[in-house]
Amino acid sequence: MAARLKEEIAAEVKALTDKGERPPHLVAVIVGHDGGSEAYVANKEKNCLAVGFKSTNLRFDETITEEELLAEIDKLNNDPEVDGFIIQMPLPRHIDSQRVTEAISWRKDVDGFHPVNVGRMNIGLPAFRPATPSGIIELLKRYEIPTKGKHAVVIGRSNIVGKPIASMLMQKAYPGDCTVTVCHSATPDIKEQCRRADIIIAALGRPGFVTEDMVKEGAVVIDVGTTRVPDPTKKSGSRLCGDVDFDNVAPKCSYITPVPGGVGPMTNCILLLNTLAARKSLLPGEE
Amino acid sequence: MAARLKEEIAAEVKALTDKGERPPHLVAVIVGHDGGSEAYVANKEKNCLAVGFKSTNLRFDETITEEELLAEIDKLNNDPEVDGFIIQMPLPRHIDSQRVTEAISWRKDVDGFHPVNVGRMNIGLPAFRPATPSGIIELLKRYEIPTKGKHAVVIGRSNIVGKPIASMLMQKAYPGDCTVTVCHSATPDIKEQCRRADIIIAALGRPGFVTEDMVKEGAVVIDVGTTRVPDPTKKSGSRLCGDVDFDNVAPKCSYITPVPGGVGPMTNCILLLNTLAARKSLLPGEE
Repeated sequence: MAARLKEEIAAEVKALTDKGERPPHLVAVIVGHDGGSEAYVANKEKNCLAVGFKSTNLRFDETITEEELLAEIDKLNNDPEVDGFIIQMPLPRHIDSQRVTEAISWRKDVDGFHPVNVGRMNIGLPAFRPATPSGIIELLKRYEIPTKGKHAVVIGRSNIVGKPIASMLMQKAYPGDCTVTVCHSATPDIKEQCRRADIIIAALGRPGFVTEDMVKEGAVVIDVGTTRVPDPTKKSGSRLCGDVDFDNVAPKCSYITPVPGGVGPMTNCILLLNTLAARKSLLPGEE
Repeated sequence: MAARLKEEIAAEVKALTDKGERPPHLVAVIVGHDGGSEAYVANKEKNCLAVGFKSTNLRFDETITEEELLAEIDKLNNDPEVDGFIIQMPLPRHIDSQRVTEAISWRKDVDGFHPVNVGRMNIGLPAFRPATPSGIIELLKRYEIPTKGKHAVVIGRSNIVGKPIASMLMQKAYPGDCTVTVCHSATPDIKEQCRRADIIIAALGRPGFVTEDMVKEGAVVIDVGTTRVPDPTKKSGSRLCGDVDFDNVAPKCSYITPVPGGVGPMTNCILLLNTLAARKSLLPGEE
């Protein structure tokens, strides 16, 4: 599905460039050196090039001051040839990440973390929405999974997955119109809550947390976990592990996403879709 | 509790004015004539004066254009003697309400409807939060009702009550840390959902909807409904009716709010609290 989505994006980009217009341009701002960020940015760049986007990585030494970084963000905000940009987290400790996030023009905030985008999404208005929950919505839509009146149980209340997917699933929309329950570290009866779910979104970051006894027959299970666990059989010495005990849970499900390979590839596509919308001076959902 | 809260606010205002500083100043913008708005604004003015605030009502004819109204908002945004202001809804049809809401400086948006405030609240940052859900939080706090790990069921998903109270109750905070379920018009089994709740927030606007058989023994029931129903025994010919069948539900509850007189009076206080925070150039929760 992710491959098909990328083909659709590439076709739109080609239509643009065939008309002599410039392709969408995504900029990643990287401060200092972080192994996770490097891998993410390399992957993002590969995806951009595959669909014909222009991709720029702006690197700064970790000694950059907050004011200097804010000035760079201001330049990007005002650069008509930059459609969208992302700031790789984590930032060095002397920089206030929230202040940086709020300095991004929300019309170029393709990561969807600016409060204006979070707020608009919550209100049900078109907005840039974060990649992971948007990827889940896209999966539900493209597999034509019924959601109206279904009971969705979200495990996890992070700002990048749990809260936004809960917000999206409760909107009067398709996919959406779910009764939504949000569980988290303070929930005493997560197993009970999950057993009643038609749709489970597991986003807590604990490998194999969702077991067979927590899943109703025929449920839809979306696994957002990506914890790296040691695995001596792998060349890298580790592998990605989801929050769901896939082998034992899968037989009970009507749909289930694997890790790796489920939500992840869709997540990558959303950043491209958001940037494509920004190139057209639109918000996703406005087309 | 609302009376005590007003006394606290009045004492803070007095401390300000005793130092020779100006009192908080709240402005209400009213376009055209709407019976509901008039009553609301008169009540707001009474509350402001009771705690020592300055209160201004800015009235415009319903023929005002959107651009003219936006220019007036800009003046208020830039007036250092205006701490907070509200725009009375509904606005005439030729004016885009959402555009108007987004034109308010979010630091003066004491109604808490600007996307920046909605987003910040959702992320768990200090923000101006809408009066009704904030009033509920204040009630839970002041009556020292335990919320951590409790299952809260919210009936209704409006942008002014259902969604924000759900967001507040799921935050890692007190009051909060609840497992939260949001039910609405597309929920097929609201009765079942409510029966499992430790805390029920009824905000759907259907008189007497929550009946005895939907409430667990010992539950906390917060009634946000305020539907006006005909009542020939009243001088006005009508009375306010909540979403809860109070007489039959109350005996099962550990706490329950009546209508009128429960959430409503706290709601009025929140607008004052928000304006007081704005006067100190703070956001509620930053003190």
